[in-house]
Amino acid sequence: MSLLGLGAMGHALAAALIDAGHPTTIWNRTPGKADALVARGAKLASTVRDAVSVSPLVVTCLLDHGSVQETLGPVADVMAHRSLVNLTTTTPNQAREFASWADDHDVAYLDGGIMAVPAMIGGPGSAILYSGSSTVFGDHKPVLDLWGESTYFGPDAGMASLYDLAMLASMYVMFGGFMQGAAMVGAAGVTATEFASRTTPFLAAMTAGFSGFAAIIDAKNYTGEGQQSLEFSDLGKIVQTSIDQGVSPDIIAPVQALIRRQIAAGHGKEGFSRIFEELRAGKKGTEVMA
Amino acid sequence: MSLLGLGAMGHALAAALIDAGHPTTIWNRTPGKADALVARGAKLASTVRDAVSVSPLVVTCLLDHGSVQETLGPVADVMAHRSLVNLTTTTPNQAREFASWADDHDVAYLDGGIMAVPAMIGGPGSAILYSGSSTVFGDHKPVLDLWGESTYFGPDAGMASLYDLAMLASMYVMFGGFMQGAAMVGAAGVTATEFASRTTPFLAAMTAGFSGFAAIIDAKNYTGEGQQSLEFSDLGKIVQTSIDQGVSPDIIAPVQALIRRQIAAGHGKEGFSRIFEELRAGKKGTEVMA
Repeated sequence: MSLLGLGAMGHALAAALIDAGHPTTIWNRTPGKADALVARGAKLASTVRDAVSVSPLVVTCLLDHGSVQETLGPVADVMAHRSLVNLTTTTPNQAREFASWADDHDVAYLDGGIMAVPAMIGGPGSAILYSGSSTVFGDHKPVLDLWGESTYFGPDAGMASLYDLAMLASMYVMFGGFMQGAAMVGAAGVTATEFASRTTPFLAAMTAGFSGFAAIIDAKNYTGEGQQSLEFSDLGKIVQTSIDQGVSPDIIAPVQALIRRQIAAGHGKEGFSRIFEELRAGKKGTEVMA
Repeated sequence: MSLLGLGAMGHALAAALIDAGHPTTIWNRTPGKADALVARGAKLASTVRDAVSVSPLVVTCLLDHGSVQETLGPVADVMAHRSLVNLTTTTPNQAREFASWADDHDVAYLDGGIMAVPAMIGGPGSAILYSGSSTVFGDHKPVLDLWGESTYFGPDAGMASLYDLAMLASMYVMFGGFMQGAAMVGAAGVTATEFASRTTPFLAAMTAGFSGFAAIIDAKNYTGEGQQSLEFSDLGKIVQTSIDQGVSPDIIAPVQALIRRQIAAGHGKEGFSRIFEELRAGKKGTEVMA
């Protein structure tokens, strides 16, 4: 395999291959980054063209979508009839755009989204989501599995990235929620470490609630038994307490705003899961900075 | 013990006492709600005054802070020299206000925040946070333990409520994060149940990251090793992808907004935990509806 890109993640991916005895050619824009990997057994290619030429499978782990275009665009001729696994973090639409480029140049394209930090690669808990060419996935799965659990999400090249970013969205929001709570008790002198010691097992246990919300969402049954109504859990006391503590409610207040909009739309007697519908309705005019 | 209030939670609290053979007197504004509990062995008091008179320990689990004031205010004379455990959900400041009333009327006051839904009371996972009178907590802990794990958070009557609401803030935000991710993949035809099956173990595992964030926050060491910089993880791809999918980014975008404000303030090379400082700084002008 030839691996292009030796940032922290690319370095970890290359190291896992070398440690498993898999023949590995590496390339990076800045050559010095390869030294340690060469000492462990990697072959260093001096140009992208050289790196691509020697392997039927090329893996990219570059800075961004533009870097992949700049790196592979000039060597499209030699990429033809090879397999490309792109682990560069991109949006789903960028992945689809690159799949289209690959199709135009007879390249078999598999897009991947890495659900791990570099230190986790090759160890327990590391997972990589793939979508695009089922042939590339099937042919190279034993190698892909050297990095972590490999799961295929179908032929739409954008699906792995979408799934990856959706799970990361959930994760970053959860982290934000921890910060919101920590700031609230922090204002009363409780350390974040003390708060974490109680909140970690509590939130881990509460993730068990997702499947219940999901069943309600999939059935669109927001009025069924056992659901706390939006009116009952409108988060007013939480937001007020954050303000009373002199803490910005900027993480929790948006959840309340979704609840209040659903109540205003006449759904106050329905369950909390209904905020899913508010998100899915997709107010496109939201002022955000993407 | 006398228990005032037989909503879903009060009913569960009473049932746990009765099942444990603890003498229990109950009162509710609407008498019919008591029938099943009386059949199981509870004594029904026809007035608040009667209920309070027969027990040294009075527990309230009413609709809100105003209900507690309305219910106990007229019987302050008979409340004197008794212990009061208030499990009604209130803000910390409301709890402190009631502690002050109790102090004025020679009532020993313990405030409680219930970290459970009614069905969990008396079973594994049920926890109740207490603060206020250490004497009340110490004297009655064996009874309080019938409902769940009892933890005392010190003499400030508002602390249990603050802790409770801070943990609930973290929980509701996490639930919101699940909805954000589910809506993103949902727009591409993935069911919420499928998303939950992958996100539940992922987020449960990621709660392990709280202790690392907490150590950074407590040390105020936002520039140390191993932290992903705010510039690196500014969530731009996630927010853009949500918009691309036609899904409102209203849950994830506020986390990004905090990151962007910290970057704008010159902290872009520092770690994600720094958004804690943005919350603690407490922009009081935030437009929210508490």
